[in-house]
Amino acid sequence: MDHFSELQSFKNLEKLAQQPLHLTDSEVLTSKRIEEFQAEGAGLKMVYAFEKVNHEVLDGLHHLARECKALEKMAKMQNGDVMNKIEGFESENRQVLHTAMRDFFQNKNQAPEAKKVADLAKNEVDKLEKFTKKLEHSNQFDTFVQIGIGGSDLGPKAIFLSLQAFQKKPKKVFFVSNVDPDDASFTLKQIDLKKTLFIVVSKSGTTLETLTNEQFFRERYEKLGLQPKDHFVAVTGKGSPMDNPDEYLESFYMWDFIGGRYSVTSMVGGVILSLGIGFEVYMEFLKGASMMDKIALEHQLDKNLPLLGALIGIWNHNFLKSPTLAVIPYAQAMSRFPAHLQQLDMESNGKRITQDGKACNFHTGPVIWGEPGTNGQHSFYQLIHQGTQVVPVCFIGFKNCQRGVDWVVESTTSQQKLNANLLAQSLALAIGQKSDNPNKVFLGNRPSHLILAKELTPEICGAILSYFENKIAFQGFIWGINSFDQEGVQLGKVLAKEFLRIMQKEESLEPKDFPLGQALLNKISTL
Amino acid sequence: MDHFSELQSFKNLEKLAQQPLHLTDSEVLTSKRIEEFQAEGAGLKMVYAFEKVNHEVLDGLHHLARECKALEKMAKMQNGDVMNKIEGFESENRQVLHTAMRDFFQNKNQAPEAKKVADLAKNEVDKLEKFTKKLEHSNQFDTFVQIGIGGSDLGPKAIFLSLQAFQKKPKKVFFVSNVDPDDASFTLKQIDLKKTLFIVVSKSGTTLETLTNEQFFRERYEKLGLQPKDHFVAVTGKGSPMDNPDEYLESFYMWDFIGGRYSVTSMVGGVILSLGIGFEVYMEFLKGASMMDKIALEHQLDKNLPLLGALIGIWNHNFLKSPTLAVIPYAQAMSRFPAHLQQLDMESNGKRITQDGKACNFHTGPVIWGEPGTNGQHSFYQLIHQGTQVVPVCFIGFKNCQRGVDWVVESTTSQQKLNANLLAQSLALAIGQKSDNPNKVFLGNRPSHLILAKELTPEICGAILSYFENKIAFQGFIWGINSFDQEGVQLGKVLAKEFLRIMQKEESLEPKDFPLGQALLNKISTL
Repeated sequence: MDHFSELQSFKNLEKLAQQPLHLTDSEVLTSKRIEEFQAEGAGLKMVYAFEKVNHEVLDGLHHLARECKALEKMAKMQNGDVMNKIEGFESENRQVLHTAMRDFFQNKNQAPEAKKVADLAKNEVDKLEKFTKKLEHSNQFDTFVQIGIGGSDLGPKAIFLSLQAFQKKPKKVFFVSNVDPDDASFTLKQIDLKKTLFIVVSKSGTTLETLTNEQFFRERYEKLGLQPKDHFVAVTGKGSPMDNPDEYLESFYMWDFIGGRYSVTSMVGGVILSLGIGFEVYMEFLKGASMMDKIALEHQLDKNLPLLGALIGIWNHNFLKSPTLAVIPYAQAMSRFPAHLQQLDMESNGKRITQDGKACNFHTGPVIWGEPGTNGQHSFYQLIHQGTQVVPVCFIGFKNCQRGVDWVVESTTSQQKLNANLLAQSLALAIGQKSDNPNKVFLGNRPSHLILAKELTPEICGAILSYFENKIAFQGFIWGINSFDQEGVQLGKVLAKEFLRIMQKEESLEPKDFPLGQALLNKISTL
Repeated sequence: MDHFSELQSFKNLEKLAQQPLHLTDSEVLTSKRIEEFQAEGAGLKMVYAFEKVNHEVLDGLHHLARECKALEKMAKMQNGDVMNKIEGFESENRQVLHTAMRDFFQNKNQAPEAKKVADLAKNEVDKLEKFTKKLEHSNQFDTFVQIGIGGSDLGPKAIFLSLQAFQKKPKKVFFVSNVDPDDASFTLKQIDLKKTLFIVVSKSGTTLETLTNEQFFRERYEKLGLQPKDHFVAVTGKGSPMDNPDEYLESFYMWDFIGGRYSVTSMVGGVILSLGIGFEVYMEFLKGASMMDKIALEHQLDKNLPLLGALIGIWNHNFLKSPTLAVIPYAQAMSRFPAHLQQLDMESNGKRITQDGKACNFHTGPVIWGEPGTNGQHSFYQLIHQGTQVVPVCFIGFKNCQRGVDWVVESTTSQQKLNANLLAQSLALAIGQKSDNPNKVFLGNRPSHLILAKELTPEICGAILSYFENKIAFQGFIWGINSFDQEGVQLGKVLAKEFLRIMQKEESLEPKDFPLGQALLNKISTL
């Protein structure tokens, strides 16, 4: 494929971006436009009437997708081609098959590689079902602690909180991720070890943060005279140092064709969601994700929500030059979803070379950030409305609340207030406000879109997760980068080891072999 | 004052920015530089050797501060001049006196206005001390729930989590902010109403989200046949509808010269921190904040940490053109501090007109975002190291952990691992890495600075908070904007009311008076 910035469609879009649609121009924003600029699928409705696109721009974007063979690449990915690679250079050279982890609901016409992997996944799911039932029957545990970091923490935690309302019995769930010792020791204070099961997650079985925290808890059991083994479950690669029945009650497997940040629908998320909420809930969640995966293969742009979202994002980022994207769910349960998306998007697409090893002369992934609404309205919305930089916003909202408890104050329910605010913000960003007082002027013309659903059910939650996973993959395909590796985290790891080396012999160190490190370390040791 | 972009020093800095320091040039990064480019005060050490500044740039920035009379304005603010205003237009016209809220420790030479306010603050603090002792003595409550939003939520919650380790007795603390009914109803499931005290925070006494959530809990008491009054405390303006002894056990006061986002050191943060952690802890916290306020008045740039931080931020944002700033505390306890900073910074400085009502032709406040390290390393660091946009980073770290529990794995403690990672990241961003494999190239030359302290004590926590409050105020002074109002949140409120209006009469509505709103609302109601 040609370099993104040399594509015919790129040049066409650059031209269109010179005179983009102004949302405040008269007769642009109409009820008809709100009706027209929307797409639906897998229970989600995407309203993008407040994006700065018209039919010409959408055609140009669709042309871009075709020129980049975005749909073909999506099919290849889901079918099990090796997509995690850089041509001509050493790279991970792996398949990317997180979609297969949930593809056992309506899996006709599956490609052989994908089918093989879906069967593997189904095996683990069946194992998990048995394990969950056994534990529920024994009633031994009421507390579950996931030890993991990055993809083994952010995604599972975000989804756990999103779906906690569906717990049948109250169970306590904690996540220990940070190597900061305060994280583990504070968790210890809040749990009863006898009633606790730890789920340790590391694909390689060697993640230092995770093993360090695991060891801390294991020692606590030994001090109590209890068998640690009875309280630990492993989620790891087959044959890793952690795949050891002498040390763990059970091993659940993951594979190197599942990236950490794409692993929520594998056992990485599966075990804690199934034990902490319920196996059936987890199944519904997978089902919703799989439904959206199928939609990501749709050729018609107005049916393919993830592709549409990807293209609108590229329009805002590469052509209208907005460096960030705010994702704001109007649902307190999704409070940690933006943090998961941050990893999912920025670790996937924060890249500077293409898949053939050439430097990008265009911007790849934006900075992703956000907090739940309405809270954000009382916080950073000032900048979004009146700041000097334009922040495109992805709003997420639901017709109904999750817990079925609502009440009326001043003639409206809380859920109505929540949604009134959601819609008001999207509208306000678009239409702005004129005033003789310059401080009360809102320029408007600021883009946003809404992703709406009836309720944040497990299935809808899966569809939303998959929407973003596939959207991000599409953007990577279009930019021509590898969205599935993370070489950018290696250098920090190497240097951290250097620091640990000099810390170990701090007393007797000759600083000459790592003078900058020693000088920096002095800044802390002399405190 | 002249418009920021017309200042002599602005033009000079623009020239310097054409050939900025490259951190990867040979002999730039030396142990000597690490020694030299640092500043200390109030227990904090700021290491800025990895910022792209040299002495010429620092002189230029210092000149900028003088040309903008930044220090004079800081003194005026702390002395009680009316700083929250727009010249020539209707505006809030208020003093800005959050620093006086904590200025009763070493308050010689206080300006009369500031002294008056510090005395008011001291009265509330004394009242709080008595109230806290009384409650501790009675032992009636073991759970405290703060109901508030924005500044009444983010700051108090961030600081509560930061200092929770200093609780003498375990107490349960919750924050209910969102108008999403799931937020309140989930909290209800986790508490014992009989043992719970609610702290309702609203300066005006009319914040709809807050009153809605308050009413929900009040009704629960009535259903139990209990007096709600015995379980509710108000933090509000004197004479507001909430300042009512028939409804609340006690009223604590705040004033219109304390902005919501600057209110953690007023009773807005004080009551929950004192009840939830301890009155003495809260006092130490105030003391640390006040110490940093004095430092913000220092004329010598290398002693004035907040001014230095403000200028470096402006260098990165306005001259080196980085649109965002990541704040990454290497301390799990500070997990919500970036969310508080997001409000503090973006609501203060996300402005587009100057204090004399002219449009800014330069960028004001950046997008602020972040998560704790080491977690972030397994997440968005990919983009920071290898993405196409440069993200300046403010790292925060501590020599010791808070809870005194640490353990050795592979010859180092967890705290050592944490700090090895902290230092490694700062160094890695600066020096980068060469490689024949383009995917393993790190360009380096990416700016960051470190804010270090011995331990995250209450006093240090106060100093860190005040560092950022004053840094943000300095940036506003330099840009010539009003950092103390928030007109940008008004339009959303107005439109939300419109939506509520049509929601109330949904059945019988004639859509003609708000057709866009009705069309949008249909998107949700037809789900």
